[in-house]
This record gives sequence, structure tokens and C-alpha cells, in this order.
Amino acid sequence: MIYSVNEIANFVDGKVLGSGDISISNIQKIEVAKKGDISFISNSKYLKYLKSTKASAVIIDDVNHETNNTTLIIVKDAYLALAKLIQKFEKKKKLNKGISDKTEIGVNLQFGNDSYIGSFTNIGDNVTIGGNVTIMNNCSIGHDVIISDNTTIYPSVSIYDSCEIGKNNIIHSGSVIGSDGFGFAQNKDSFNKISQIGNVKTEENVEIGANTTIDRGTIGSTLIKNGVKLDNQIQIGHNVIIGSNTVIAGLVAIAGSTIIGDNCMIGGQCAIAGHLKIGNNVKIAGNSGVGSNIKDNQTIQGIYAFNKQDFQRSYIIFKRLPELSKKIDQIINHFK
Amino acid sequence: MIYSVNEIANFVDGKVLGSGDISISNIQKIEVAKKGDISFISNSKYLKYLKSTKASAVIIDDVNHETNNTTLIIVKDAYLALAKLIQKFEKKKKLNKGISDKTEIGVNLQFGNDSYIGSFTNIGDNVTIGGNVTIMNNCSIGHDVIISDNTTIYPSVSIYDSCEIGKNNIIHSGSVIGSDGFGFAQNKDSFNKISQIGNVKTEENVEIGANTTIDRGTIGSTLIKNGVKLDNQIQIGHNVIIGSNTVIAGLVAIAGSTIIGDNCMIGGQCAIAGHLKIGNNVKIAGNSGVGSNIKDNQTIQGIYAFNKQDFQRSYIIFKRLPELSKKIDQIINHFK
Amino acid sequence: MIYSVNEIANFVDGKVLGSGDISISNIQKIEVAKKGDISFISNSKYLKYLKSTKASAVIIDDVNHETNNTTLIIVKDAYLALAKLIQKFEKKKKLNKGISDKTEIGVNLQFGNDSYIGSFTNIGDNVTIGGNVTIMNNCSIGHDVIISDNTTIYPSVSIYDSCEIGKNNIIHSGSVIGSDGFGFAQNKDSFNKISQIGNVKTEENVEIGANTTIDRGTIGSTLIKNGVKLDNQIQIGHNVIIGSNTVIAGLVAIAGSTIIGDNCMIGGQCAIAGHLKIGNNVKIAGNSGVGSNIKDNQTIQGIYAFNKQDFQRSYIIFKRLPELSKKIDQIINHFK
Repeated sequence: MIYSVNEIANFVDGKVLGSGDISISNIQKIEVAKKGDISFISNSKYLKYLKSTKASAVIIDDVNHETNNTTLIIVKDAYLALAKLIQKFEKKKKLNKGISDKTEIGVNLQFGNDSYIGSFTNIGDNVTIGGNVTIMNNCSIGHDVIISDNTTIYPSVSIYDSCEIGKNNIIHSGSVIGSDGFGFAQNKDSFNKISQIGNVKTEENVEIGANTTIDRGTIGSTLIKNGVKLDNQIQIGHNVIIGSNTVIAGLVAIAGSTIIGDNCMIGGQCAIAGHLKIGNNVKIAGNSGVGSNIKDNQTIQGIYAFNKQDFQRSYIIFKRLPELSKKIDQIINHFK
Repeated sequence: MIYSVNEIANFVDGKVLGSGDISISNIQKIEVAKKGDISFISNSKYLKYLKSTKASAVIIDDVNHETNNTTLIIVKDAYLALAKLIQKFEKKKKLNKGISDKTEIGVNLQFGNDSYIGSFTNIGDNVTIGGNVTIMNNCSIGHDVIISDNTTIYPSVSIYDSCEIGKNNIIHSGSVIGSDGFGFAQNKDSFNKISQIGNVKTEENVEIGANTTIDRGTIGSTLIKNGVKLDNQIQIGHNVIIGSNTVIAGLVAIAGSTIIGDNCMIGGQCAIAGHLKIGNNVKIAGNSGVGSNIKDNQTIQGIYAFNKQDFQRSYIIFKRLPELSKKIDQIINHFK
Repeated sequence: MIYSVNEIANFVDGKVLGSGDISISNIQKIEVAKKGDISFISNSKYLKYLKSTKASAVIIDDVNHETNNTTLIIVKDAYLALAKLIQKFEKKKKLNKGISDKTEIGVNLQFGNDSYIGSFTNIGDNVTIGGNVTIMNNCSIGHDVIISDNTTIYPSVSIYDSCEIGKNNIIHSGSVIGSDGFGFAQNKDSFNKISQIGNVKTEENVEIGANTTIDRGTIGSTLIKNGVKLDNQIQIGHNVIIGSNTVIAGLVAIAGSTIIGDNCMIGGQCAIAGHLKIGNNVKIAGNSGVGSNIKDNQTIQGIYAFNKQDFQRSYIIFKRLPELSKKIDQIINHFK
């Protein structure tokens, strides 16, 4: 596909600075873009490439930068514009419909219009699949599962019995939804397994990354609310609730029964203890541990996370601790 | 199923305070329980719901709390009582037997009574499967593998060649048992792979969560002893030994050749270096790193973990470091 | 197989100290080795076993140790010698060829000599598979994928559309290559998915552990260069570049667009933020967080990693902070 700069500017609601007639055939990162490519800057770290880029045009949200006479398309939000533009260049996937003849399907399947079940996928009894659902190959869908309209499930996903997946969900390969919560009752030195009789429910527009695991409730549901985005290799414990539009990066672990608010942003590798309440709009820096309840609108950091700015102030002094310790010893020696 | 409070009290060996004739049809968490539900309190964080709960009865291990006239069942250990009670309300799973006609089975399979192999599962040569074993769909069982009596393997589990799984094990979806240890010999700038010719052995009553990985021994075995419980997304390196009844939470990584004692409890997201010896009854707080041997009965915490109370005392002062630093400067300025 | 000590010494280019005629039938760890076993010491932690081992011979890189008259084979690098020797004792795997009749294969497959596709594996359209490639059972290979010569792919691996796997790669079970990058453009409170139209490319001699995930580029490629070794459960974000011969331990998370240099060593459980540049020959201690660019040849540690020795000096004083704080208070009280 080839578009003119003017066509693209029109599509992303931007203003052209420079020649609008140039032909664009590809999107590319600014540091490697060539003639015929359009690029973008949404992170100021990449501004340094603006003078030297060979891109034929660059989408940017600010005009006040020195360029090498590259054509610019000025927009309000370059990342949002990129999101729109990429769709224009995306190779449309071949959409399969129907049920492969190499599946194992239980009794009483409800199967919506324009949906698909791929090869080597196993579907339990009493499963309900909405319209326009794609379940790729080698998936395992347990008994009594509901998968709602417009949801896409990549290969090798396991969904245990009785889980409910909402509309417009995307679940990437290798994720496991509804595995047993980690619940044991200590009996002297050994542990008795507590049967996990709850399930997992996801609401609408949830995306779940690759190899993420979400345990079922011990009793009741583990709940992932509207618009939640989970990255790869996240672990969500039994009976956790994740509030609407919360975004969680890779390798985060959330222990059982913790409730996370709406619109939170949780960085990669965080560990959040069980039975906590994290408020709305909370931001947690990557690699932090959370061991206590957190109020709304806090931004926190640390192995026992607290206010991020305070953490960083303390950390600056942590780095100078040997010097500080020496000063104290000097004072003490001075007065001996 | 409907039981009277008296029947339930009898079953969990508890004493009824209030009406024993009330009918119970469901178990539910205390904060959302309705009429006809029985609930429980095993964590004091939930005591606040005791006055307002709509549950028809509550299992609890202490009588000295104000209630809204809810019927109580007083037990020694509410969590243990819950574990027993849930089994009464658990929906019995349909138990399959035999071998699906959509499998790939190698030569010389030993197959015990009442066992099951699901569709799209691949079994290597010379595999021994005990009695009452369930291997669900899409699993990969290598050559020369032994799977002992009463073990359940969920979908999409991979067990590499020559591994031995003990009795009464549960292995959740996506776990990989016996993958190659991470062993390379440096040869100038590049690395030569060291073939990994050992295996993984699990003893009895082991539970392995979803997407957990256990590497085979380089030579000899990686060993998971009786009663060990592993949560989701744990990584166990080559030749690690995990002692009996040790419990490990999600996303813990244990590097090669480390030996962990009996009855340990390891919190989520811990990283434990290789070639260490961790004693018996050791407790490691979540999000800790362990870089040295740990003696029996220690409770430790920190990015380089040491005594937990000492860590917390240091951390309290870490939070006040800017203030401390200012004091020191004041003292120094004072004497200039 | 049985070899004499002399044969083995010859094979590993070592010098025999003691009897060279002894028969060796097995390799075993030094602490459990028996008569007829050969063992090795490549880590000084295990020297303590040298006096008591029952091994018939021990490979070691230094002669100056007291032994129990055990025969020694003296080599330059005991670990490298072990790597060579293990191959002699490795049970040769049955090598399958051809395409199982229980697969699903798309149109236009290019299939090299001596290659294999296992049962219940799904291959998309326009896939190119080189010579001597093994793709085991239950794998998912998307459309337009290239898998180069001599590569081995274990069961239940997912490779998304358009990814390119280099020569001599090994990919372990459950890994996901080419899943969508975690890219969303914020739109008031909710998030619009940014289509991820790039791919993943691996160069030669790459090994990828079990349940590791590598996201595709948003645009362009996520790139894993020659000789990189990735352990289990690593997460590599979109557009990350990993330099040649870099080695990364388990459960490391690297966020999008970060560039890692050549010959780096990254310990387990590290978290590396996005859009960073990590130099060549950088060593990062396990359990560290990296939030800023790192120059060549640095060795770093900490939750916000900096120079490792400096971190450890600060951490020693962190452990004494309560004492330090008390001293300061004493000084202040003294002068009140």
C-alpha cells in the first residue's frame, strides 16, 4: 500500500509541515527509517534522531525541533496517531470460520456465528462460544466455560472449567486461566489442599499476554474488570480483583484476595502481597514490593514500596552511606 | 446440596452458637455472602465484616467477637474446617478412563487401572503410567517417563525424557518438567552447551502450579521431596533439591544446585542464587534475594536477605535517611 | 559404555595423576559419586568433598589439593572438560524424520532434508523449514515463519506469524515467540491497542529456555543476536535487541525498545526498564532493577542498580542503620 503524506495527515488529523505529495509505503523506527518510510517521535529520547533520519516524513506532537528538512506531520498525540496509522499498514490476517475436523468437542456446545475452533483444540461439555470468536489450535477449554463475542484466543491457551471470558478479549499463547488457587491448610508439618471451587471472570476489552496465569477463586470469582491490560508472565492469585483500565507490566505477581483499584499502572516485576487493598489511580514503579494497603492516587516505589519521590531521596543517600558513616565516625572520634 | 448448620458443625467438628436448624446451600466469602450461605473467618482482616454479614452462618475459631446475631460454628482452625467443608460443596468432576483415540503413543506403554490419557497428548516410548492417573489433553510425555498412581496432569504439560513423577502429584497447565538446565562452558567469548543428562524426580503429594518450570539435573536428579507445594511460574534450576513440605509462592527463581531444607516457606518473587544451602524451617519474605547459605529456623528478608526484624528496623531508618543526613550536616556545620 | 581413565584423559586433553587403567561407567556429582563413577570440581565450594569422595576419578583444574588417593585428571578448565565428557555418556535420542500424519499443515510449505514435524503440531501458510530441523509435538507455527537449519523446537512452543528463527537454535517447551508487544495508546481513561506489525528474529546458536516469551516488534524486529542464551521464563519486550553471546538467567524482564550489548551476563529476576541502552560486557547481579543507561564493562547491582562494589558497601551500612541512627541521636543529645 502506498499513501501520500497528505492522505496520512488527513487520516491522523494532523497538519503537514513540508511537502505533502511524498509517497509513503512503510512505517519504520526513526533510527533505521529509509526513503519512503514514515516514522514518529512519541518519546523525547528519540528526538536526537530527528536531524539525521532518512524517513520521508515524521509524525510528531511538537514543532519546535530542528530537523533536516524532513516533512513533519504535527498531531496532538503522536503515539495515538501511530496507533491509528499502523492499522492502515497491518497485513490483514486470514480469518478462519467453523470448526476444524481435528478437534475434540464435548456435548452441548453453543457456537456463535462466524466463530472458529482450530485444530487439536479440546472443548469440554456445556461450553458457550459467542459470535465472531476465534479459538486457535491446541487450546484447552474446560467444561461449562463461556467465551463471549469477538474474543480471540491464541494457540495453547488453557481455560479451566466454569470460567467466563468477556467480549472483545484477547488472550495470548500459553496463558492459563482458572488454575487452582494456592490454598493449603497446615496440618502439623504437612499441608491439606483446599479445593478451589470458584472461577475466573473477565469483563470486556481485556487483553492477557503470553504465559500469564490467573487462578480461580477459592470460592467466588477472581475478577478482571473492563479494559484491563495484562502483559506477559503475570501471576494473579485466587480471588484477586483488578479494577477497570488498570495496566500491569510483565512478571508481576499478585497474591490471593488482593483488590486493585481502577486506572492503576503497575511496573514490571512487582510483587504485591495478599489480602491488600490498592486504591484507584495508583502507580507502582517496576521491581517494587507492596506489603500494605495503598490509598488512591499514590505513586510508590521500593522493596517495601512507599512514596516514590521519598524513596528516591532515600536511595540517593543509600548510595552515599559509606561516606555518611565515615562522617559520623569522624564526629565521634573528634569528641573522644 | 443443602445441609443444616448442625450437619455442617458435626462434619467440621465444631460447636454451634445460635440456631442449628438453618439450611445452608452455598459457601461464600463473608463480605458478599447472602441468606442461605455459610461463610468463614480465618484471617483477622475480615473480622470487620462479622457484624454486617448477611451469611446465615459463619465458621470462626474464636467466640469473643460482636456479631449481628449470626449463627456461629466455633472450630479449632477455621481454615482447616473450610478445607473440609469445601469438599462437600465441590462439583464432582466427570472422571474419564482409558486412552483417547486421538493420541500418539510410543512403544511399550505400561498403563495402570482406571487411568486416562486425553486427546492430542503425545506419549514417548517405554513410559510407565500407574493406576488412577489422569493425563489431560495436549500433554507431552517424553520417553522413559514414569508417572505414579493417583497423579493428575492438567492440559499442555510437558514432561521431558526420563523424568519420574511420584504418587498423588498434581501438575497444572503449561508446566514444563525436565527442560535442560542452564549450563554452558565459556569458550573465549562464546558458550558451549553442556548436555544435560540427568532428570527430575518428584516424590509423593507434590503440587506444581501453572507454567512452572523444573530443569533436569546436569548429571543426577533435580529432586522435589514429599509434600512440596509449588505455586505458578516458579523456576527450579538443575540439580536443586527442595525439602519435604516446603511451600513456595509464585515467580520464585532458584538457581542450579541449591539445596532447600524441609518445612520452608518462600514468599513470591524471591530469587535464590545457585550452589547454596538453605536450612530447615526457613521463612523468606516475598521479593527477597538470597545470596548466602541460611541456617535452620531463620526468618529473612531483603534484596540480600538477612534477619527479617533487623531488615525492617533498617528499612524504617532507610525511609528517614534524608532527615538523618540533614542532622549530620547540621552537626558538622555546628562545629565548623 | 565403559572407558578407562586414560581414554577419558586423552579425550578431555588432561593429565592423569594416579592409576589410568581404572574403568569408568558413569559421570556423577562428587558428593554422591560411587566406585566406577568419574566426577569433577569446577566450583571451589565442592573442594571439601575431594577428600571423602568415593568417585574412581575426579576431573579438576588444579593439583594442589589433598585427596584420598583418588585418581585425578588435571585439565585447564574442568567445566569445559565436563561439557565434552558428558557428550560421551549422553543417551542418543531417537531422531525422527518426516511429517507425522497427525499434523495440520498450511499451503506452500518448504521442508528441508532430514527434518521432522511431530504430531498435533500446526503449521501456517508459506512456512519455510530448513534441513535437519526438529519440531516436536503440539507446536504452533504461524504463517510466513522461517525456521533455519539444525534447529530443535521442543513441544508446545508457539511461534507467531512472520517470525524468523536462525540456524542451530534450541527452543524449549512452552516458549512463545512473537506475541504482541505491550503497546497501548491512552485515550482518556481507557487504552487503544496499537497493532503490533513487526516480528522476532533470532540469529545463530541461540538457546531459549522453557516458558520464555519474546514479543514481536511494534514495527520492525525484536532481535536476538548470535550465541545468546536465554534461561526459562524470561520476558523480552517489543523491539528489544540482545547483543551477541549475552547470557540471561531465569525470570528476567526486559521492557520494550531496550538495547542490550554483546557479552553481557544478567542474573536471575532482574527487571530492566524500556528504551535503555546497556553497553557491552555489562554484568548485572541477580534481583537488580535497571532504570538508566549503563556503559560498557560495568558490573552493577541494586533495586536501582549501580556499581556492585559500591552497592555492597552501602548495603553493609544499611544493615547497621539502626546503630548509626542511635549514634547520631547520642551525639545530638550530648550537645543539647
